[in-house]
Amino acid sequence: MPPLSPLDLAHDDPYGPHNLPYGVFTTPDAPDLRRIGVRYGDHVLDAGAAAAAVGSPHIALLGHPTLNPLMAAGRPVWQAVREELRTWLTESAHRSAIEPLLHPLTTVVLHLPFEVADYVDFYASEHHASNVGRIFRPDGGPLTPNWKHMPIGYHGRAGTVVVSDTPVVRPRGQLRPPAGQPTSDQPTSDQSAPAHSALPLFGPTRRLDFEAEVAFVVGAPSPFNTPVPLSGFHDHVFGVCLLNDWSARDIQSWEYRPLGPFLGKSFATSVAAWITPLDALAAARTAPPTRDVPLLPYLDDSAADAAGAAEPGGLDLRIEVAINGHPVSHPPFAAMYWTAAQQLAHMTVNGASLRTGDLFASGTVSGPEPHQRGCLLELTWSGRDPLRLPDGERTFLEDGDEVTLTAWAPGPGNNRVALGEVTGCVVPSTP
Amino acid sequence: MPPLSPLDLAHDDPYGPHNLPYGVFTTPDAPDLRRIGVRYGDHVLDAGAAAAAVGSPHIALLGHPTLNPLMAAGRPVWQAVREELRTWLTESAHRSAIEPLLHPLTTVVLHLPFEVADYVDFYASEHHASNVGRIFRPDGGPLTPNWKHMPIGYHGRAGTVVVSDTPVVRPRGQLRPPAGQPTSDQPTSDQSAPAHSALPLFGPTRRLDFEAEVAFVVGAPSPFNTPVPLSGFHDHVFGVCLLNDWSARDIQSWEYRPLGPFLGKSFATSVAAWITPLDALAAARTAPPTRDVPLLPYLDDSAADAAGAAEPGGLDLRIEVAINGHPVSHPPFAAMYWTAAQQLAHMTVNGASLRTGDLFASGTVSGPEPHQRGCLLELTWSGRDPLRLPDGERTFLEDGDEVTLTAWAPGPGNNRVALGEVTGCVVPSTP
Repeated sequence: MPPLSPLDLAHDDPYGPHNLPYGVFTTPDAPDLRRIGVRYGDHVLDAGAAAAAVGSPHIALLGHPTLNPLMAAGRPVWQAVREELRTWLTESAHRSAIEPLLHPLTTVVLHLPFEVADYVDFYASEHHASNVGRIFRPDGGPLTPNWKHMPIGYHGRAGTVVVSDTPVVRPRGQLRPPAGQPTSDQPTSDQSAPAHSALPLFGPTRRLDFEAEVAFVVGAPSPFNTPVPLSGFHDHVFGVCLLNDWSARDIQSWEYRPLGPFLGKSFATSVAAWITPLDALAAARTAPPTRDVPLLPYLDDSAADAAGAAEPGGLDLRIEVAINGHPVSHPPFAAMYWTAAQQLAHMTVNGASLRTGDLFASGTVSGPEPHQRGCLLELTWSGRDPLRLPDGERTFLEDGDEVTLTAWAPGPGNNRVALGEVTGCVVPSTP
Repeated sequence: MPPLSPLDLAHDDPYGPHNLPYGVFTTPDAPDLRRIGVRYGDHVLDAGAAAAAVGSPHIALLGHPTLNPLMAAGRPVWQAVREELRTWLTESAHRSAIEPLLHPLTTVVLHLPFEVADYVDFYASEHHASNVGRIFRPDGGPLTPNWKHMPIGYHGRAGTVVVSDTPVVRPRGQLRPPAGQPTSDQPTSDQSAPAHSALPLFGPTRRLDFEAEVAFVVGAPSPFNTPVPLSGFHDHVFGVCLLNDWSARDIQSWEYRPLGPFLGKSFATSVAAWITPLDALAAARTAPPTRDVPLLPYLDDSAADAAGAAEPGGLDLRIEVAINGHPVSHPPFAAMYWTAAQQLAHMTVNGASLRTGDLFASGTVSGPEPHQRGCLLELTWSGRDPLRLPDGERTFLEDGDEVTLTAWAPGPGNNRVALGEVTGCVVPSTP
């Protein structure tokens, strides 16, 4: 009996023909030749080679070292290419041409699949924002007065977005001065300084955290002064991936007033190696939670929801967070208050343009239950309630810890659609 | 008598051989052919054509449509190219080859001269930060507790950085709900909503402002996990330009808690068309103000100042802000509390890498005197004290207003070094 072909997947493989996420890979024999790959089961199709073998009109887009030209081509091209890929992988007429172009996942190296333009991080989970508000601002309300009226967001550092499996070095930085005494772990001879001049500490973060997020990748750009309405979401957004917004909580809490997060976040942001096309998630669309207050027209998706599945809304993605292989949380993306379409509409309502490669993330995904919280800040309530893992207790991440996010969504029929994992290992700070 | 050659400048021309800023231009006969230009008096030298005519080894760098490859080449190359340019423009042996390659400024179109990677905006003027603190947070201290310990900064939107002379459309967005009553300029039938759900207003900003800033352009990149020390500033930073960080104060004040500025800033950021090499500003180096508190070692530039001019420090740039040609302010860059070298050291201390094209700006430049304030928020004290201009009073910018920033610095001898202007006209919002 011949060995099973990589084209013969189990009918319920979560990387079957209904999924087809895109990545960029190299093989050991040609480590500088980056190629677009499409994941199929546990193999990667060399998409450019397949296009050449079959004589596809999209050979230039698929034969590129990044996804950017394909992403820029727009939705009709995305749909045509996706249909071609499905045909190549499932129809017997193409079998002999395609089968040799599939590489086992274990033999390839995966790279950041697109050039990131601007990176924006939102704060779209009511449960997360409320928990953080209670932890950081116990004297005020859990949510700021603007929170229910707009998706709060900020720009992050695009240049430090890295692909899954990239080690993350524990960052160093300023930490809040101890209360009431001028001191530092750096020697200082100036003891005559007034009390308010107590030096901050400086050193490796002691409160390194992950944040489980879902990110959206802009394909088709938009011009200046042309806001993208809710209905334009599927024309501009190419796909979805998991994202870990690594956070140094002590650096962040000392620096963030009044202009927001900066060095507490900018050292690394990990994204999955696979970008799942939006069309693969059609069956996962779901209504977002009921809104507590009326929304301004540019954000109001209540009519779209009533009209049915054709309009953008929430996405039923089930996330799992594991530390060293041990599951610690199951955040439900369907519980997010603000949808990605609302985030895109908000981000452009002031006339800001979109570029191919813009990446925007949801913010930490947390559900209403304690086991659904998407970061250690919440899971341990700022360190008060340590997690018990098989290898010991955790308040925040320790050197050597590996954090892995995985997710799946309902697909057509009873099939699941898997999202590519994002994983990263914490390595010690190097002075 | 033959007409004066464009190579014969007045001895005190602020765009003489001691300046030589870089830009990118096109001519009307070849509008798609972007070329690197070097400003000389009121002319632009076609640098790539000059390199070809003279047989320069740097023809590939100078024959590019953006400055990025030259910027990436590093300081020894920057210095060699600058020396070549000076030779070409000043030595009679090159006169006949070079003279035909000079285009009158009035005949060319100037473009964004480099591809922006990440854009970071700091908040480095103590006078500005104190004034804003008094205006926005009258109940608290004027400065947040972290301000004297680190240069506060945040990431801005790189994709909406535009070149001088680009019109700026008045942005629309959410404005804080009127206190105490549920209302909106959008009709809503939901009058049963509780009081806390009063809808924000939506419309064109009523408080459009400029911010006079100085920006620094990163040339040589840096790897991950390798902080750039204060002494590395001149190896990484290619040049300097003026920047106008347009700001919608009403959008900003409603959105900025807790994650900082977003749509109030992201609609447009204007930069000058000319990037002045750091070496042109050697005579403008000056000690920064005395620091009130000891600084952590990675930010401590007191030793460098004592050692003399070889180390980075402040820059004596004299800025003028004009509205419709009428000067309204003269911010002194020498008064900035945090230097650009400190900003760069801080930005990378957590291990974040630098890319060619990273742009970081000082934040609003304000001096201690009222006529030295760098934005209308301060100049009019949030609208309380209107400015009197020849064409009427101003609290914030009106449609049709043109804002122009210019600056000069002491150069060698008694010469001045002019920085390229940044100008922009406000055009009405288009619903």
